[in-house]
Amino acid sequence: MSHTAELIAVGTELLLGNIANTDAQMLSQGLSALGINVYYHTVVGDNPERLRAAVETAKTRADIILTTGGLGPTCDDLTKNVLAACFGKKLVFHEPSAQRIEAYFRNLHPDRPMTENNYQQAMLPEGCTVLENDWGTAPGVAFEADGVRVIMLPGPPRECKAMFTHRVVPYLKELSDGVIASRTLKLFGIGESAMEAQLRDKMNAMTNPTLAPYAKEGECELRITAKADTEGAALALIDPVEAELKAHFGPLVYGVDVPNLERVVLDGLKAKGLTLGTAESCTGGLVAKRFTDLPGASAAFRGGMVSYATEVKHTVLGVEQALLDQYGAVSEPVARAMAEGARRVLGCDLAISTTGVAGPDPDERGNPVGLVFIALATPEGTWVRQVHLSMGRQRIRHIAASHGFDLARRYLNGLELK
Amino acid sequence: MSHTAELIAVGTELLLGNIANTDAQMLSQGLSALGINVYYHTVVGDNPERLRAAVETAKTRADIILTTGGLGPTCDDLTKNVLAACFGKKLVFHEPSAQRIEAYFRNLHPDRPMTENNYQQAMLPEGCTVLENDWGTAPGVAFEADGVRVIMLPGPPRECKAMFTHRVVPYLKELSDGVIASRTLKLFGIGESAMEAQLRDKMNAMTNPTLAPYAKEGECELRITAKADTEGAALALIDPVEAELKAHFGPLVYGVDVPNLERVVLDGLKAKGLTLGTAESCTGGLVAKRFTDLPGASAAFRGGMVSYATEVKHTVLGVEQALLDQYGAVSEPVARAMAEGARRVLGCDLAISTTGVAGPDPDERGNPVGLVFIALATPEGTWVRQVHLSMGRQRIRHIAASHGFDLARRYLNGLELK
Repeated sequence: MSHTAELIAVGTELLLGNIANTDAQMLSQGLSALGINVYYHTVVGDNPERLRAAVETAKTRADIILTTGGLGPTCDDLTKNVLAACFGKKLVFHEPSAQRIEAYFRNLHPDRPMTENNYQQAMLPEGCTVLENDWGTAPGVAFEADGVRVIMLPGPPRECKAMFTHRVVPYLKELSDGVIASRTLKLFGIGESAMEAQLRDKMNAMTNPTLAPYAKEGECELRITAKADTEGAALALIDPVEAELKAHFGPLVYGVDVPNLERVVLDGLKAKGLTLGTAESCTGGLVAKRFTDLPGASAAFRGGMVSYATEVKHTVLGVEQALLDQYGAVSEPVARAMAEGARRVLGCDLAISTTGVAGPDPDERGNPVGLVFIALATPEGTWVRQVHLSMGRQRIRHIAASHGFDLARRYLNGLELK
Repeated sequence: MSHTAELIAVGTELLLGNIANTDAQMLSQGLSALGINVYYHTVVGDNPERLRAAVETAKTRADIILTTGGLGPTCDDLTKNVLAACFGKKLVFHEPSAQRIEAYFRNLHPDRPMTENNYQQAMLPEGCTVLENDWGTAPGVAFEADGVRVIMLPGPPRECKAMFTHRVVPYLKELSDGVIASRTLKLFGIGESAMEAQLRDKMNAMTNPTLAPYAKEGECELRITAKADTEGAALALIDPVEAELKAHFGPLVYGVDVPNLERVVLDGLKAKGLTLGTAESCTGGLVAKRFTDLPGASAAFRGGMVSYATEVKHTVLGVEQALLDQYGAVSEPVARAMAEGARRVLGCDLAISTTGVAGPDPDERGNPVGLVFIALATPEGTWVRQVHLSMGRQRIRHIAASHGFDLARRYLNGLELK
């Protein structure tokens, strides 16, 4: 039987527009992947009466109520108190949670005494399932009452995502009749609307497995989701669709069930025992930052240069002054020289360089915002890609960095470098 | 008399998590600025029954219902049909809108004939105020019925924002019986629960202005919000509270209504005509990345080094091998030498360095995950801060970078460097 979930976010900061309800997006994706329907999102402020009203409404139309926010000491644990009351449950002191909170606090602030209000967070609905929070202080809570499963998660997106992935998904898996399996193809180099146009008829015709496209920052995802009695049977439904899509999109598919381009690059480098370095101008450290976001990056990453001032491109990376004078910092020859300079100075096998105009204004030579040259230097030579990006400084920087990783993963996988 | 608005977003893509409800954030900010209370956000899919249910609920608790999405031909103008029905209004053909749609379509697709369903968009509730859409095809709609003001806007964020700013704000201005003003104090170096414990009694006692704490990644915010007849009067209510909080928290307050620490550092550098450079190990480029996220960073940023491999600390930054051998890469002397090396190599006035263990594993010398040394080199000398962070690699890196900016802004503002 299929389940219906309603998301209730608690936080006046959402109603004031201080933040967007990104938890709802993350949770909606996760619940859909479990085959659970989400029919409503509701957002209320830090207000007991209005939260109670939202919960009473949700009880009439959902068998899973998932709340985010309102668990911290700063709001008197509003959500826990109201939800417990709505379902006629008492709050009781939960010693293990108190100890976890103490330990967590001590480890975070060895120098600071823990304040009384932190202990409030250990008051939990009687007989509930405690969802241990390894990413913050407020424990999550789950209980079943009046035929409804109630799940409460902390609001900060980082905590909420980790709690959902590691605590809620296992807790809800048992609910879904049959097994839902999914695989996600990651694509770089094609826009979502172009991808969707090529697949629309196919997607509309499919029922099991289903195909869902997602637009990411400069990338696309295709999620294939199948439902069957066993995981093996579900995956068997997915395999042919996956093979067909890979054949259709070819090298645009950079991975399946991989988190991002940089992870593919790191795995490729490790497999071949190669090292990476960076020489960044317009991305200002973003390429190095994204690569070192990966645990274990040190196995392959030598280091990087951020040659933001033109002079530094010469003094640190050894880019010839003549090149800079003749072509300007934002040019194919300088991108090439930066990447080759990084290989030399850092002593790495591969080097990614970026130089371009991230905006807000064109550069002194009149190069337009969004013009970026990305180079990859290798033992077999150097390749340079020129792109014209749009839609704002952060997006230009992000996609320019992605192009660097795309060049590297194409080189490492023996694909055409273009 | 004060007004209460409810936002209803229509779109299955929101319930699937394909996109976040950023319209709600934008509209909430705009409505608060008009002194209109927003008590609920609701999201429903492209489903007439559930949209009708959401509207019926909203009618009982709001006197302004603002919908986003569901106006285009792709969803059969769901929102307009349901809202008109809920308030007993017929849809009638609106000739001027039809002409605008034709013109817009012709100029967008000179080659394509306009399809019948585009004309549907010119069917509007009888007697409504038409909100002309200069940014897309679907006109917005506003009408008053059963004591409720109904406003319907298109969903695409770019259209929605332009329509709200240029059509809805003028339409609603007459309603607002006062102005809400707010200021946000940004704090670094104190935890949210500790801050909240110091302020709890004060916060509970306040009504106008109100005081709200927010936890950010490694930081805290204190938002003071006041309501009055004029902005000046509202700010006059805020001023004394702001002064009192600044006095109470002293140098922990790094700014008011500023986006982040790095912006304060950039402004300070520009004011003094100084330049910045970086030498990063565990933050792997994040310090440079965050600083160059700021438009105009090039006015002060020379560049940076990511000396991830220990050897690179020596070859590129000139950290003496003896120091590395004796103390190890994660140490006070090496942090100091990295920052001083960056000043020398990059020719900048100030340099921030980081070296530490971001995890997941302790380093080869057994230094624990979360131990980080952050240094600031200046013409007057070098300061090093040692911190023990927790809660995961990304957070450790982020907060370590923030400590670098905190040292710089303290130096630039003549505050105690500790």
